[in-house]
Amino acid sequence: MGSESFMELVKGRRSIRRFLPKKVPREVMESCLEAARLAPSGENVQPWRFLVLDEPDRIRDFGEQAFSGIYRFTRWALKAPVIVVILAKLDILTNRIGAHLQGTQYYLLDIGIAGTHLMMRAYEQGLGGCWIGWFNAKKAARALRVPKKYRVVCCMALGYYEEPRKRRKKKYELGKVAWFNEMP
Amino acid sequence: MGSESFMELVKGRRSIRRFLPKKVPREVMESCLEAARLAPSGENVQPWRFLVLDEPDRIRDFGEQAFSGIYRFTRWALKAPVIVVILAKLDILTNRIGAHLQGTQYYLLDIGIAGTHLMMRAYEQGLGGCWIGWFNAKKAARALRVPKKYRVVCCMALGYYEEPRKRRKKKYELGKVAWFNEMP
Repeated sequence: MGSESFMELVKGRRSIRRFLPKKVPREVMESCLEAARLAPSGENVQPWRFLVLDEPDRIRDFGEQAFSGIYRFTRWALKAPVIVVILAKLDILTNRIGAHLQGTQYYLLDIGIAGTHLMMRAYEQGLGGCWIGWFNAKKAARALRVPKKYRVVCCMALGYYEEPRKRRKKKYELGKVAWFNEMP
Repeated sequence: MGSESFMELVKGRRSIRRFLPKKVPREVMESCLEAARLAPSGENVQPWRFLVLDEPDRIRDFGEQAFSGIYRFTRWALKAPVIVVILAKLDILTNRIGAHLQGTQYYLLDIGIAGTHLMMRAYEQGLGGCWIGWFNAKKAARALRVPKKYRVVCCMALGYYEEPRKRRKKKYELGKVAWFNEMP
């Protein structure tokens, strides 16, 4: 109430793709995961699963598969101290029937919500990071031996960092993306 | 750094479906929208658009269409002082070609991220709310005269509230949803 700290976190946040070679303590990651665990989801399905890679060998084995070929532009993530692979557990009722009725893969919204909890808790603890959608999900699943009941949705690179010199990405002005009561 | 305020927000948060009959000032809503505006998105596409309904007549006209028939279980939202309708602006390259290559509607992840920024800023300002996926998106689009280039994805009910007496929904334990380095 009356606090501005979340807003400050939002204003200070920027995507981080270069990291310091410094280990991220397990307690720090666990607190990020705890923030994700408490996120809301449609029908409380909690479709998210998080596979955290924090061993350099695992990251290399994973990244060589996931960031190959047309996905090589994501190879910067190989240098991240942590990669969180986000999986969806596909629940039949809400995800298949619901998605069919509504035409929307709602579990992706849920994963966006939980992932944001994770990401913002990471920033609050001094980490930075970046969502990754551009990777070979099939090869990633194979490299990680992901059972068929899970779908590899996206990943995140996380780690400690120095403030980048690059300028922030421009965002649309508010009037371009938000309106009251009537379509513009 | 070292702050716990986001974590406290996450721990204190619960979905709110009953609201006090109290108007939400425009400045408060604008700050929520500003938090959403600054969210990251794949290729910085910023696919989100927010149509905020804060006039009782607009909410009623919208809700009578959106929450009818099999969607009537969402009629509680008619009593919310604010309904945010979230639209996606469908960008051809990232959303259609990208989704086709990857099999994932990535704009939904982006909308989950921006929506969480909006929602958590709402909680930070003393509001509560709930994501809504169960509504008639076609009728909603018609009631709101949404042009074809936008897709109605979901909505959110927001407002001031008294702490509900109902128990919190149970969440899976951390070990059920998060693992380090190896699938369980």
